[in-house]
Amino acid sequence: MEKVFIVKIGGNIIDDELALGQFLSDFSQISHKKILVHGGGKIATKIAEKLQIPTQMVDGRRVTDLPMLEVVTMVYGGLVNKQLVAKLQALGTNAIGLTGADGNAILSDKRPVKEIDYGMVGDVKTVNGKFFSGLLSAGVTPIIAPLTHDGKGNMLNTNADTMATEVAVALSQEFDTSLLYCFELKGVLRDFEDKNSVIPAINPSSYAILKSEGVISKGMIPKLENSLQAVDRGVGEVVICHAMDIKGIIQGDTLGTRIRK
Amino acid sequence: MEKVFIVKIGGNIIDDELALGQFLSDFSQISHKKILVHGGGKIATKIAEKLQIPTQMVDGRRVTDLPMLEVVTMVYGGLVNKQLVAKLQALGTNAIGLTGADGNAILSDKRPVKEIDYGMVGDVKTVNGKFFSGLLSAGVTPIIAPLTHDGKGNMLNTNADTMATEVAVALSQEFDTSLLYCFELKGVLRDFEDKNSVIPAINPSSYAILKSEGVISKGMIPKLENSLQAVDRGVGEVVICHAMDIKGIIQGDTLGTRIRK
Repeated sequence: MEKVFIVKIGGNIIDDELALGQFLSDFSQISHKKILVHGGGKIATKIAEKLQIPTQMVDGRRVTDLPMLEVVTMVYGGLVNKQLVAKLQALGTNAIGLTGADGNAILSDKRPVKEIDYGMVGDVKTVNGKFFSGLLSAGVTPIIAPLTHDGKGNMLNTNADTMATEVAVALSQEFDTSLLYCFELKGVLRDFEDKNSVIPAINPSSYAILKSEGVISKGMIPKLENSLQAVDRGVGEVVICHAMDIKGIIQGDTLGTRIRK
Repeated sequence: MEKVFIVKIGGNIIDDELALGQFLSDFSQISHKKILVHGGGKIATKIAEKLQIPTQMVDGRRVTDLPMLEVVTMVYGGLVNKQLVAKLQALGTNAIGLTGADGNAILSDKRPVKEIDYGMVGDVKTVNGKFFSGLLSAGVTPIIAPLTHDGKGNMLNTNADTMATEVAVALSQEFDTSLLYCFELKGVLRDFEDKNSVIPAINPSSYAILKSEGVISKGMIPKLENSLQAVDRGVGEVVICHAMDIKGIIQGDTLGTRIRK
């Protein structure tokens, strides 16, 4: 099967112009088929502030009322997404910016209200794998903003990690997928105080041991369980890595933490 | 040749929720291949105001400095475009929102500074007809925001009428194109005081007579000359009409002003 790289970047890199430039240059040099999924960055909060729309966060997740939905639709789907697309075009990558509404790419259900009402937030229901594979076959690189739609006319704010996972799983029927979660560390660390103590590989049985030994920090647990689920659902491998290391990882260097089945 | 409708709507309809709903319902019912090109509406000006970015207009055109470029990229490329896409998806039209940067759809040159510096404004250079025909063949309906890119990493604010014309011209090599310019009147009027005095058809020779007789109002001259150029460059017909009349026009009713070669 042909290889596809699905790369997820967070807000930290979106907000850092210099690092973003380097990342986009590295990303554009991936000669395989590829997809970029991006987070939002702090700019949505800044613009919401100027528009006097209060930002409310619960457990690190944005509560999205209707005015905030307009802000994230503008900022993630317009400003951030189109700036990435224009920059990648200049680097020779034929990028196309997408939300889940475009081409009915990713359909969500509005999250049910339980203890917390997250508002206009979506939980991914279906990924239109054919649409993505059609674009990839046409030599186009999808750049996905963290927004989906509900099929009833509404946009929904959606977690970029989840979107990247679901896109990778959907494409795994047709491609050999590698899902790269980029963040601010070099990988999953054995010792949080030592930024170079990257655990090179994790599989379900080594994860169980690391977890029971208390080596895995609390913040990494959801990311790792998400990754293990992804490989269980057909993704070839997940790599948790620093955004500056993607070039090396694609060349096969021992960088980041590789999660395999 | 297969028929394609390219429909351009202005800001007046974007700003009117009720009329927009009716228009999108009519548009979604066009059974032929179709493309929508939309203007911006007043919302960009309102948001710019709240962000304390002054709006400067020269001859009805927005001067686009860098802060204003961010606003129009957000509002046209994000908010307006994605809301249209989500609504059309709910109506059963597989819409995809695009700026000229996406898929390198429409490349522009930054307008040279002469008497006026319009700032980050683009004059369309090339349309990627193959990209559009690929989407249309896949059953996807492009929804185009009034933004292009310069191929050097910058988005450019671009006139929606011109974009619609250039897309129609590019597609005329492969399709029988109809370009519908929707605006707030029922067509080109013989008597501006009588909103029903629509001139049903105009061709180059009748235009010359109408112009010499002073029947054509000053505001209509650029629209009509643009339309005559479009049919001269291969577009099957241009219809200048009210947004509420597109359903009838597509059914062949005598509505709007038809411009043919």
